[in-house]
Amino acid sequence: MSSPELPLPLDDLGLFTDLYELTMSQAFFRQGMNAVATFSLFTRTYPDNRGYFIAAGLEAVLDYLCNLSFSVESIDYLKSTGMFANDFLEYLKGLKFTGSVRAIPEGRLYFTEEPAIEITAPLIEAQLAETLIINQVNLQCLLATKAARCVWAAQGRGIADFASRRTQGTDAALKMARASYIAGFSSTSNVLAASRYGIPPVGTMAHSFISSFSSELTAFRAYAESFPDRTVLLVDTYDTITGTWNAVQVAKELEENGNNLVAVRLDSGNFNELSRKVRRILDSSGLAYVKILASGGLDEYELEALTEVGAPIDMYGVGTKAGVSADAPWSDMGYKLVSYDGKPVMKLSRDKASLPGAKQVYRTKDMKGMFARDIIALESENLPGGLPLLEEFMKKGERTSPATSLEEIRARFQEDFSALDDRFKVLKNPPRFPVGLSGKLERLTSEVREELLGANVSDSD
Amino acid sequence: MSSPELPLPLDDLGLFTDLYELTMSQAFFRQGMNAVATFSLFTRTYPDNRGYFIAAGLEAVLDYLCNLSFSVESIDYLKSTGMFANDFLEYLKGLKFTGSVRAIPEGRLYFTEEPAIEITAPLIEAQLAETLIINQVNLQCLLATKAARCVWAAQGRGIADFASRRTQGTDAALKMARASYIAGFSSTSNVLAASRYGIPPVGTMAHSFISSFSSELTAFRAYAESFPDRTVLLVDTYDTITGTWNAVQVAKELEENGNNLVAVRLDSGNFNELSRKVRRILDSSGLAYVKILASGGLDEYELEALTEVGAPIDMYGVGTKAGVSADAPWSDMGYKLVSYDGKPVMKLSRDKASLPGAKQVYRTKDMKGMFARDIIALESENLPGGLPLLEEFMKKGERTSPATSLEEIRARFQEDFSALDDRFKVLKNPPRFPVGLSGKLERLTSEVREELLGANVSDSD
Repeated sequence: MSSPELPLPLDDLGLFTDLYELTMSQAFFRQGMNAVATFSLFTRTYPDNRGYFIAAGLEAVLDYLCNLSFSVESIDYLKSTGMFANDFLEYLKGLKFTGSVRAIPEGRLYFTEEPAIEITAPLIEAQLAETLIINQVNLQCLLATKAARCVWAAQGRGIADFASRRTQGTDAALKMARASYIAGFSSTSNVLAASRYGIPPVGTMAHSFISSFSSELTAFRAYAESFPDRTVLLVDTYDTITGTWNAVQVAKELEENGNNLVAVRLDSGNFNELSRKVRRILDSSGLAYVKILASGGLDEYELEALTEVGAPIDMYGVGTKAGVSADAPWSDMGYKLVSYDGKPVMKLSRDKASLPGAKQVYRTKDMKGMFARDIIALESENLPGGLPLLEEFMKKGERTSPATSLEEIRARFQEDFSALDDRFKVLKNPPRFPVGLSGKLERLTSEVREELLGANVSDSD
Repeated sequence: MSSPELPLPLDDLGLFTDLYELTMSQAFFRQGMNAVATFSLFTRTYPDNRGYFIAAGLEAVLDYLCNLSFSVESIDYLKSTGMFANDFLEYLKGLKFTGSVRAIPEGRLYFTEEPAIEITAPLIEAQLAETLIINQVNLQCLLATKAARCVWAAQGRGIADFASRRTQGTDAALKMARASYIAGFSSTSNVLAASRYGIPPVGTMAHSFISSFSSELTAFRAYAESFPDRTVLLVDTYDTITGTWNAVQVAKELEENGNNLVAVRLDSGNFNELSRKVRRILDSSGLAYVKILASGGLDEYELEALTEVGAPIDMYGVGTKAGVSADAPWSDMGYKLVSYDGKPVMKLSRDKASLPGAKQVYRTKDMKGMFARDIIALESENLPGGLPLLEEFMKKGERTSPATSLEEIRARFQEDFSALDDRFKVLKNPPRFPVGLSGKLERLTSEVREELLGANVSDSD
């Protein structure tokens, strides 16, 4: 049995954690400290050129928490390290996640400092889950946000995810397909992702296909014979213009049997120049219906440039640079303890301070229905007029509702994205969306800070 | 059943591929084109500031090829897309990899244009494997190379992999542990990776551990009670200097019971300044044996700067920036058809041309045993005086030898790295290691180019 969302064998979920989660847990266990804690997952700062995030990855977190346990083999391994006491290992053997999860639903936009997910559970359960939760949500959030930037830059042209071969591993390939579909990509080349997530699969041919035939024209004909009604011809293996004329030839042959060539694909060279030349060749040959697909080294910056010059490209395939979020391959997303045993807590480290207490985020809209401002408040507060973003997804270790379909998540993103003013979507140095703190949260933050400084720092000053 | 190297359920391996691998395969199948092909995996250009690569990822490729098949569910999914013919699906149902694999062994250094792996198999089998092969080898090569740069910059200080929480997914977390261990890291925080790969696990405590106690000192004492002989105290939750004095207190209490505090960990602030202050406090307290560990935002550039100023740091924990290879999160590694049915082939696309024919790489050394020059030659050539780098790992679909242990791979890297002149290891703009082509390969490249231009381009000029 394995978890399709992670993707890891269920038996291994317990060990997918940083060692310190386990050593800390043993220390907690030894102290009898396993009261209810709340951890908050949030991103402190925007990576370069980012002004919003897309909530993504919650489904993997829920799947993990529902299945978290330590197999006999896992316990044996831990025993073999010589670090753990038998009573603690016995405790781990029976461990299940029994807590609750509140989160901003996948597909929603959110901003820095806002908790994307809050986990409330016995301290040890919540602590052990840290590594996998950050790993999954950080990745999917980065990829969905990168993809949304591409969709925005392409201004309505369809985009296919071609990233699988150069994402950072198999999990990232599957998550890129999922996250980019949430953000508006139209399809994925990854067949496993397509089958798992119900995303339309897409694909044409590689240069190697052309190279393995005696000539490009022979290769084109062979492909068209197998897929008469869904052929896209890759025209740059030897020379894009010659390739296009060969495609024209095959398109005419397809027409004779009542079929239409779908598109030609450009995969190298100057896309603006080449797409114009290719468009002219196709149009002058009576093939105005044949579309042009471009792929190869594209990201949101390239897409915006092509959109601005009006290159006659109908569809894009986007791969490597989007699939690794190349200009922002990481964020400083963290998972911080904000409450233990009913008492708000925080961290004071320089540049890494956190806000105490379990929270809620309230979003207000203007008269036109556009996002106006978010307020981060305590969970216990109720700010009238704002939409509370965090919803309950697990309670007492059980999911409170069935998984949301990817289509619904995708629709939710569309709805949110259209309510975000365009000025926050510019690709370079976007302004900050206004996010404030409630008065109660501000006061609590000051109080807890004072108290901590009193207990921990006064003797050194 | 699942493959620990990938990590994906074995039943899903067939579908982990780009759709076009399958559509091309159907076209090949329809044409009766399934003669023996050779594909070559290589990286065309160095990412910024890179001057060498480390071979890594072969074990995942071999594991994949040994297990590649299409489950009944996979065939059903493909059928449901309406793209594939029944006879082709029947063929896929029985598909196994029956070819051979030649590769540069893991741990060896190699350079641009050199084939890291060559797959020779019936065309369809070799084509279908493209996506996963690039995905795995590209990732592990990038991570191992990044880690080697860190090890070089730390000049003998131990480095632990702390990257799991922010690698791009679960697969990347496991591969980061593996690849960085190959390149000389001493340990990993990821317990699953430690257990699978036999890497020493390492871990201390998080800020949340400190925050969940009433004071830092109480937290330190609680941890030391559980791990009296292996405690590393994180001292920056509130204030690094106060935290260090609390650590001194606990170190003294440990001494009373015959135990020694192992280290303190700095995780924020100016590491050079703080490590000097902390060292002075420890030394003046009779705790010269307590080591200093630094972590947080480190990469090879930071490590080099700390080494150069002589910061008294004994060990490092390296995370996010190494775990995503932040300054070079992708490479242009490709998998190109170089021979089909006994005939050498190549690709001419601008900036993406490839060298025809199955190959061997010969490495020559100078009088001191240092790497002098590599020559890329045809597989059929035998260049005297050079060490052939590619070895056979699979034949007729079976592994020709058992898997190499990670310790052996790590030793092989050490051996190779010490034979590479230091000037190629500088972190910024290293010179290019000299790699040439054999006369036969140069001639073949010209011949094939001429022939292809004749067949595919002449009519457009």
